Amino acid sequence: MPSIDVCLTPELLHQYELKGKIAVITDVLRATSVMVTALAHGVEEIIPVEDLETCRSYREQGYVIAGERGGETAEGFDLGNSPLVFLNEAYAGKKLAATTTNGTLAIERAAAADQRLVGALLNVRAIADYLKKQPEDVVIICAGWKGKFNLEDTLFAGALVKALANTHEKACDAPLSAEMLFDQAEGQLENYLKQSAHAQRLEKLEVLDDIAFCSQLNRYAIVPIMKGKRLITL
Amino acid sequence: MPSIDVCLTPELLHQYELKGKIAVITDVLRATSVMVTALAHGVEEIIPVEDLETCRSYREQGYVIAGERGGETAEGFDLGNSPLVFLNEAYAGKKLAATTTNGTLAIERAAAADQRLVGALLNVRAIADYLKKQPEDVVIICAGWKGKFNLEDTLFAGALVKALANTHEKACDAPLSAEMLFDQAEGQLENYLKQSAHAQRLEKLEVLDDIAFCSQLNRYAIVPIMKGKRLITL
Repeated sequence: MPSIDVCLTPELLHQYELKGKIAVITDVLRATSVMVTALAHGVEEIIPVEDLETCRSYREQGYVIAGERGGETAEGFDLGNSPLVFLNEAYAGKKLAATTTNGTLAIERAAAADQRLVGALLNVRAIADYLKKQPEDVVIICAGWKGKFNLEDTLFAGALVKALANTHEKACDAPLSAEMLFDQAEGQLENYLKQSAHAQRLEKLEVLDDIAFCSQLNRYAIVPIMKGKRLITL
Repeated sequence: MPSIDVCLTPELLHQYELKGKIAVITDVLRATSVMVTALAHGVEEIIPVEDLETCRSYREQGYVIAGERGGETAEGFDLGNSPLVFLNEAYAGKKLAATTTNGTLAIERAAAADQRLVGALLNVRAIADYLKKQPEDVVIICAGWKGKFNLEDTLFAGALVKALANTHEKACDAPLSAEMLFDQAEGQLENYLKQSAHAQRLEKLEVLDDIAFCSQLNRYAIVPIMKGKRLITL
C-alpha cells in the first residue's frame, strides 16, 4: 500500500523525500483554486512563475499574465488572484502565466517529485481518483502563508487523505491530524475558510466571494499536472 | 487582550518572536509529562540537559540522572523516560538531571522567552490559571518528533488554547487548528495518543502504561517554570 504524507508548510519540505513520489501542491486561497478553475474553463496551459519580472516577460509571448502579492493584483498585470474571472469561458483557449505569494513558490520547490499535481477543494475527488491508480507514495504540500501553517490548505490535505483512506497508509501524524480537521470542518467549509487567519487578512467584499467559491468540494473533475514548466490538464 | 500562538515544531521556531512573551513547552510523550509528574511527587528541581554527556556529569553533584534516546533508557543512566517511577514519592527530595530526544532540546531553544513554563496534559488547567493572570503574549512550543509535527503535543496546545479562549486572542491558524483537534479528541485522549505515530513507534507494554498515564487531563495542579537552568515548581 503506498503511503500518504502531508507537509504542513514549505519550510518543512526538507523533512520530506520527494524523489520517486507524487507531490500534490495546494494553495486553496487562492492560487491553486485559480489554476483549477482556469483549466476547467478552457485555459490551455498555465506557467507558474516565482517572481513578478519573469511573469511579466511572458506577455510578449502572448500570455495573459496574472500576478498577486499580499492579496492584491500586482501593478501592470492583467489579472490578480480571483478564480471568478475564468467563469463563462472568458479566457478559454488562452495561455496564462501566473505568480502568487505562496502557491507558485510551493510548486517550484516541489520540483524533485516524479509528478506534480495541483489540487484544491474544487477538484479533490478527481485528484484522489487519479492517485488510486498510481503505485507511488504521495506527499501533499501545503503552500501555507509566508512559510506558516494555514488551515485551508490543511483542510484540502485532510479531504484528500480521507478520500484515500482505503488505498494509502498515513505516514505520520500530519495526515492523521489533517483528516481529523477535515472531519470536523466538512459540511461547513466556507465558515472555516472564513475563520482562517489568511481569509481575515484578505477580508474584502470581493475576496469573500472568492472564498465562498474556493470552498466548494468537487466542482471540477480535472487533474492539473506539471509537464516541464507548464501546468496542463491530464 | 494578550495573544496565544502555537509553534507546531521546533523547526518553525524562527517564525516566532519569543522576547517579551511566555513560552509553554510541551513534549507529552513523554519528557514534559515526566517533569510534571516528578515535581508533583516531590522532586526538588530538574535540570533539563540537551546531551547525554552533560547529563552524566550531574551524577557527581548528587543528581539522579534520567536519559532517553529513541524511547530507550540511555546506557548507564538511573532512569529512562517513564513518569510512573515517580509515583509514591519514590524520588521525593531528590534532584534530577534529564535529557530526552525532543523535549529538553525544545526547552533549550526557547531560552529567548521571558518565562518558560513546562506543560503536559497532566497540568493544563494549572498552566491556564497562571497564564490568565499574566499580561504577556503566550507561545506554545510543541517539541514534536525529531523536528516533525506530532499529534499529542498539538492536542496539549489545543487544550491550553481552549482553556484561554476568553482571555487570549488566537494569533493565527495554528492555535485555531490545535483547538479544533482537541475538540475532536477530548474525552478519548488515550485513544488518540495511542494512534499517534510516535506512540506506535514506542509501542511496548510498559510504554502503553505511560501513554495511558500521560493522557490524563489535570491530574496535577502545579506550574513548572525554568529559573536559570533549573526547572522548579512555581
